[in-house]
Amino acid sequence: MVSIILSNPQMGENIGAAARAMQNFGLTDLRLVNPRDGWPNPRAEAMASGALPRIDVSVYASLKDALSDLHFTFATTARNRDMVKPFFTPNSAAEETLKRKEQQQNIGVVFGAERSGMTNDEISLCQSIVTIPTNPDFSSLNLGQSVLLIAYAFMQDSLFVQTEKKFLSADNLPATNEDIHIFLERLTSDLEAKKFFRAEDLKPTMLRNIQNIFTRGDITDQEIRTLHGILSALRGNKKTD
Amino acid sequence: MVSIILSNPQMGENIGAAARAMQNFGLTDLRLVNPRDGWPNPRAEAMASGALPRIDVSVYASLKDALSDLHFTFATTARNRDMVKPFFTPNSAAEETLKRKEQQQNIGVVFGAERSGMTNDEISLCQSIVTIPTNPDFSSLNLGQSVLLIAYAFMQDSLFVQTEKKFLSADNLPATNEDIHIFLERLTSDLEAKKFFRAEDLKPTMLRNIQNIFTRGDITDQEIRTLHGILSALRGNKKTD
Repeated sequence: MVSIILSNPQMGENIGAAARAMQNFGLTDLRLVNPRDGWPNPRAEAMASGALPRIDVSVYASLKDALSDLHFTFATTARNRDMVKPFFTPNSAAEETLKRKEQQQNIGVVFGAERSGMTNDEISLCQSIVTIPTNPDFSSLNLGQSVLLIAYAFMQDSLFVQTEKKFLSADNLPATNEDIHIFLERLTSDLEAKKFFRAEDLKPTMLRNIQNIFTRGDITDQEIRTLHGILSALRGNKKTD
Repeated sequence: MVSIILSNPQMGENIGAAARAMQNFGLTDLRLVNPRDGWPNPRAEAMASGALPRIDVSVYASLKDALSDLHFTFATTARNRDMVKPFFTPNSAAEETLKRKEQQQNIGVVFGAERSGMTNDEISLCQSIVTIPTNPDFSSLNLGQSVLLIAYAFMQDSLFVQTEKKFLSADNLPATNEDIHIFLERLTSDLEAKKFFRAEDLKPTMLRNIQNIFTRGDITDQEIRTLHGILSALRGNKKTD
């Protein structure tokens, strides 16, 4: 399954345009994180041209919650960010998605709020970045257009791409984002107990950096269990050295 | 050169949206055949978000005139027509265009009027047909969106072919394997001290699993430093080398 996630969308028109774009290319799972004007939204319905009844729309209080059952997510950004994550074009993202769908992975593409786009905190919740390449001198895609191009690229690929070798075995699924966050919360709480975050103002950045280490790279279920084991061992009271 | 030709466009908004879509993907030649509300058109300007001054717009009395200096043209149609012409998807049209541009051919993509699309007479003026594949149960692309998808497909093929994962920032280099292994050795020695490896015969497998977590995913120098900091915090005393 491929889900489209709109984080903090402001205008109902854009939600409707996104739904319409999705239906044109056969996508049916739309997740809204904190839509400014609530949900349902008559302006979205007007703009969707009949697409909304064909789509599952769900509303979440946080992006983290919206991503929890997904295995691999793309953060859409218009420009480079100082984040080291796997980087995709729409076409290469579509190829990656096709491979992962064969393994029954749930995939998500996240779009940020109109104007501002995704925040660094939002991006750090995602496994990778996808950027729609545009004219460097004139880049002016709105939210609905961005969803349209991504949905189009994803559909093209499912129509044309031949199946390639899987790079992960089927019983070695990546952890869901929920599993990753349970580990991160445990790690964070241990680090707090050990006074790791000396400067309170730097804590959000440090947390984001730590999160980036573990959301990248397809950590598997088994590896999350290993990390829990490591943490349990290290937090043990026994003195070392 | 690739020209976009709008035949009998009705709404200025759609002309503006087409111009904006073109500029996003670097196209600059827009030809209008009998625009209903004349030209220039303030509604087009409002919708173009500043794209129009960057585009050469010319107005023609007939589609035949508008195509006269072009070598190869695509008629966009939403559905099959009973015409025997070469048939393209946006991607294969883009490939064809790339070949022909190398021969200095002038290429055009023609879009019909809103609602009705291209007439059979108009199609018969073109060398070939291009159709954007959409969901057979829900096909609802407006003129601006169709131009956007064609312009995008053409640009993907000509200017941007990036299929490799890449790093977003040059000063965010991946750690060397040596740095990764220094961290792994320190982690291993801490885990040994905490009796993490209960069964000696399983130790090599567990070590390999741990190594896999950190060698995948392009960990950076900065992240290795963060991991050292975490380890120091969790073990409760600073490591001094």
